[in-house]
Amino acid sequence: MPHTIQPLYKAMTKRLGDGTHDLKSDDMSHRLANLIVAGHGYLETTVKSPLISGVPGKSYFMFNDSIRSKTSRPVNRALYMEDINRNTIDRMMSCDVVGWDAEYITKVIYTCAMTYCCSADLLKTSDQKTPGTYFEVLIGHLVARVFDVNPKNQITVPTLDMTVTLPTDFIFDLGPGNNRIHLPTKISTRERVVQVWAHQRVLDGMHGVARFKGVLVAVAETNKQENKSVVEVCLPNQWVAYQMYIAQMHRVYYLDIPEKYLNLKDTYPFLQVKQFGEFFFEAESIRKSSAAA
Amino acid sequence: MPHTIQPLYKAMTKRLGDGTHDLKSDDMSHRLANLIVAGHGYLETTVKSPLISGVPGKSYFMFNDSIRSKTSRPVNRALYMEDINRNTIDRMMSCDVVGWDAEYITKVIYTCAMTYCCSADLLKTSDQKTPGTYFEVLIGHLVARVFDVNPKNQITVPTLDMTVTLPTDFIFDLGPGNNRIHLPTKISTRERVVQVWAHQRVLDGMHGVARFKGVLVAVAETNKQENKSVVEVCLPNQWVAYQMYIAQMHRVYYLDIPEKYLNLKDTYPFLQVKQFGEFFFEAESIRKSSAAA
Repeated sequence: MPHTIQPLYKAMTKRLGDGTHDLKSDDMSHRLANLIVAGHGYLETTVKSPLISGVPGKSYFMFNDSIRSKTSRPVNRALYMEDINRNTIDRMMSCDVVGWDAEYITKVIYTCAMTYCCSADLLKTSDQKTPGTYFEVLIGHLVARVFDVNPKNQITVPTLDMTVTLPTDFIFDLGPGNNRIHLPTKISTRERVVQVWAHQRVLDGMHGVARFKGVLVAVAETNKQENKSVVEVCLPNQWVAYQMYIAQMHRVYYLDIPEKYLNLKDTYPFLQVKQFGEFFFEAESIRKSSAAA
Repeated sequence: MPHTIQPLYKAMTKRLGDGTHDLKSDDMSHRLANLIVAGHGYLETTVKSPLISGVPGKSYFMFNDSIRSKTSRPVNRALYMEDINRNTIDRMMSCDVVGWDAEYITKVIYTCAMTYCCSADLLKTSDQKTPGTYFEVLIGHLVARVFDVNPKNQITVPTLDMTVTLPTDFIFDLGPGNNRIHLPTKISTRERVVQVWAHQRVLDGMHGVARFKGVLVAVAETNKQENKSVVEVCLPNQWVAYQMYIAQMHRVYYLDIPEKYLNLKDTYPFLQVKQFGEFFFEAESIRKSSAAA
């Protein structure tokens, strides 16, 4: 049912009368679940072709629509749940994770993320924008439900001379006595990731260091080569330099976490890179943690 | 003679045996001049179609190759010299600017920049990379000749734990007692410009504030709309925030300077945005200026 996916995507992006999203609403849970179910159903009608993995310990395939002669981005075999059902999707979209561990939650969200992204790869021509928007709404929805507050996408700052309004990634204001969260989302980071630290630096400069906790959420760093092999493109030394000299990100979460970034937590400057499922168990400590933590 | 342009582009990018460019060499002056002459000659065989200017005081056209059904990016009518000759191009590539003022130099370099960029627009399919590389080599060559030193594209930094090597934009080491120059080049800045301030911040953090003088060189901020009108996309408030909170760029030079950025020099934080021709008259003060300036 590929013809239902685009209307369901449009329904997901539909905004309220005042131009905002009620991201944390039950309505958004339903809109996302409908789109995920449609994407998953469509992908079940395609062929899964194996890819050559250049990443130790990981195995990848791609979806292959032979009628349209299109192939999808690489999918991590261990994380994608072919047999996911509507009830699991509905529970995830409601953030009802009772009895689930971080690893299972990560798999469910990875599957939810890839259903739309891979459907878009197969159904649309050179579509770079809608997967990024979809992932932003998906993560924004889950985090907004966990914190029970909708994010904003800009901040207004009065300076000595004038008032400056800047567009930003998601900003969650968790109320008096709690942290504010600066939450960028990226399908993959590549060379543009320095923006994340730079925006954190602007927030630190405007409002005081670590008043906003920086939390980056990304899918993966996989890259499909022309010979059908998959590699992970990681630049850990550059991340170390950004964390040392630009600003301090509080967390980086991945759905398909690259081993090379996982190790950044063990040496100075101790950048905490984790699978996204962990967020559901440490959200309260992120809400409350002190500037020094 | 479009068939000569691609080989001349490849000749321009050819590196020395050790993988570096001798950017400041007479040889590079010739390579660039040959490519500029070929591009200019080819563009003379195409049609100039007027565009609707949405920018007060500026008039634009585009080159139109009717055989290939291709059109170029917008060209500023007042800056592009249709009648430029080989001698003028050779003098510019040698940085022999005796008797020329900043405005004239800017026009000559704008013309040299646009000949290749517009030729690539017309001759190649979805070619985003070679114009950026061409512009980087063109500006790198001119600045290297003025300073009489070739730039590097990476810096190595020993930290307490390890040695970090980072790829960078051009870094000119002007010798003991002089400044070092951090010189990124961009055809246009758009949303990626925060990278420039972020990299300056890393250099400031690693080596001390303003030990490297940041000098951004860009062509223009024009955008051709679907209805054939041209607008300038400028975000001066964001630049103010970057200059206040991330790092301090010493100069921003344009070939086709947007009015909205020109005014940034008049109010705090006093970001100096100028036409690139000015560089040839203030290079010595940039070489010597103190951290406070």
